[in-house]
Amino acid sequence: MPSKTKAPTAAKSASADFAALVGRMRQGDRRATSRIVTELERLSPDLPALMQALGPHLGHAEVVGFTGPPGAGKSTLVNAYTSHLRRAGKSVGIIAVDPSSPISGGAILGDRIRMPATLDDDGVFMRSLASRGHLGGLCPAAVRVIDGLDAAGKDAILLETVGTGQSEIDVAEVADVRVVVMAPGLGDDIQAMKAGLLEIADIMVVNKADREGAERTLNQLTGAASLRAGTRAKAAVLKTTATTGDGIAALADAISAVVAGRLEGDRRQRRRRRARYLIARAAADLISERIRAGQDGGLDALADKVLTGRLLPAEAARTLLDK
Amino acid sequence: MPSKTKAPTAAKSASADFAALVGRMRQGDRRATSRIVTELERLSPDLPALMQALGPHLGHAEVVGFTGPPGAGKSTLVNAYTSHLRRAGKSVGIIAVDPSSPISGGAILGDRIRMPATLDDDGVFMRSLASRGHLGGLCPAAVRVIDGLDAAGKDAILLETVGTGQSEIDVAEVADVRVVVMAPGLGDDIQAMKAGLLEIADIMVVNKADREGAERTLNQLTGAASLRAGTRAKAAVLKTTATTGDGIAALADAISAVVAGRLEGDRRQRRRRRARYLIARAAADLISERIRAGQDGGLDALADKVLTGRLLPAEAARTLLDK
Repeated sequence: MPSKTKAPTAAKSASADFAALVGRMRQGDRRATSRIVTELERLSPDLPALMQALGPHLGHAEVVGFTGPPGAGKSTLVNAYTSHLRRAGKSVGIIAVDPSSPISGGAILGDRIRMPATLDDDGVFMRSLASRGHLGGLCPAAVRVIDGLDAAGKDAILLETVGTGQSEIDVAEVADVRVVVMAPGLGDDIQAMKAGLLEIADIMVVNKADREGAERTLNQLTGAASLRAGTRAKAAVLKTTATTGDGIAALADAISAVVAGRLEGDRRQRRRRRARYLIARAAADLISERIRAGQDGGLDALADKVLTGRLLPAEAARTLLDK
Repeated sequence: MPSKTKAPTAAKSASADFAALVGRMRQGDRRATSRIVTELERLSPDLPALMQALGPHLGHAEVVGFTGPPGAGKSTLVNAYTSHLRRAGKSVGIIAVDPSSPISGGAILGDRIRMPATLDDDGVFMRSLASRGHLGGLCPAAVRVIDGLDAAGKDAILLETVGTGQSEIDVAEVADVRVVVMAPGLGDDIQAMKAGLLEIADIMVVNKADREGAERTLNQLTGAASLRAGTRAKAAVLKTTATTGDGIAALADAISAVVAGRLEGDRRQRRRRRARYLIARAAADLISERIRAGQDGGLDALADKVLTGRLLPAEAARTLLDK
């Protein structure tokens, strides 16, 4: 039975391969990093062996999430902040989460176009994550790639979403520091995004601050920040002009301040919190699918009670789950 | 025991009140409509009695959802489409879902500012729904208000989100026809929104079509529409300039075509599908909360398996739910 004897050998050789590959990655071999990130992204069947090889090197990087509406200039800001970190001697990983690609068949904004300043810089590694091919979901893939770049020794991992909705929430949940990027002149209903984004922001940035209306946007965000409910610290509100670099140093200081105040705890707990989030999200999707598929016979009766005002949806959900 | 004898009397009188109120609403009494909508929005304790009074009048309206990124001109488009419907003799209800208001303390864009053309038109009723005060959630409140405006006899109910993320998904799930609104010049990463929005769109609109880049945006959306996966019909792609009314008649035709192809089924099923969605969403929130609160002792072990690559988050979720 060759398959029975072959399996452990294959697993062993995968382990040995990965150990060597991780070693090369940690010495700065770009191709090794690229291959490891690809393995992580594509859900290699040897994932456990790979994670084992990465394990001892995890927990160094700080993960900074950038989110905000289209047109706010997130990519340019991420580039400018990357250059700033590089000048300070820090290495950087960039993960651009791009939920658009089931259509386009790949990240719309090529890494080449995205990163002109740092393309040939070995201290920067960038990967765009697209939806296609991520069997286990885009967010779990991003979390695995974070581990890869962390183990590669990157000092900072910048997680940027170019989409909206769920991917925005994901970035917020997965990052250690959350930067929300706005810009003046995006139309009046941009204000409507404040509330949701405010809840997740550690730092709010008015980018394109050289444009008309920047002061007004700044005042709005400052007002909103002062009203934040709960016990969380108020978000810092800053102006940047990413194209000229204005304000980037202050942004870096603000990020450092959040990091200094937060990352003293157990690094393992941060990874666990991420895993917990991924499980919770998957469970929510699963339960929602099951309910909507109507696999539960009692659902129509509950739906009718909701329709006639005798139950709230949340009460019906609790009834269903506690059965 | 006065409370025991009083309760049924109170309920009875609420029923009688609501029957009279619904009667006045159906005769076009704006204040009656406003009061009923407020009762629905605020989760009146007499909700069952109110729903009973509304029940016989439900199922007439078609619900058209408008969603899209900030700056696309959704509000202006909704206004222009409303004027078009009015000229065709149809009555219109507008529900603007505005998740911003926990901060602002009310809808940011007042109804007066929003609806200059139709402010004094009795054939139009508009209500902005804000997060604050909706104990059972914003989406359930919107679904109740849909019932109210449906029972008022509105021919079309236009559901517009001025936020993003979950409220966008909600609009798509709750509407009978889904219109995604885009505009040229919103920056390159606007493209990244295509995929998610594409999946939900029946009709895609390039608004502000008099602006530079409109043809390019149209081509991109047309290309994206032709690639849509699955068995759903391709989305129609149209150009409009809401400020001048250009393209609005064609949009109205496209909406009618979708309605004609879809609403022949059981009207009751549409309401039930909405209720099912509300329950599924509430259940997903609930399960996610429970898991993240760590009420389940087995979670840390599962999280560790995810962290070491031995389980995917979805597999861990299934294990957790099936326990």
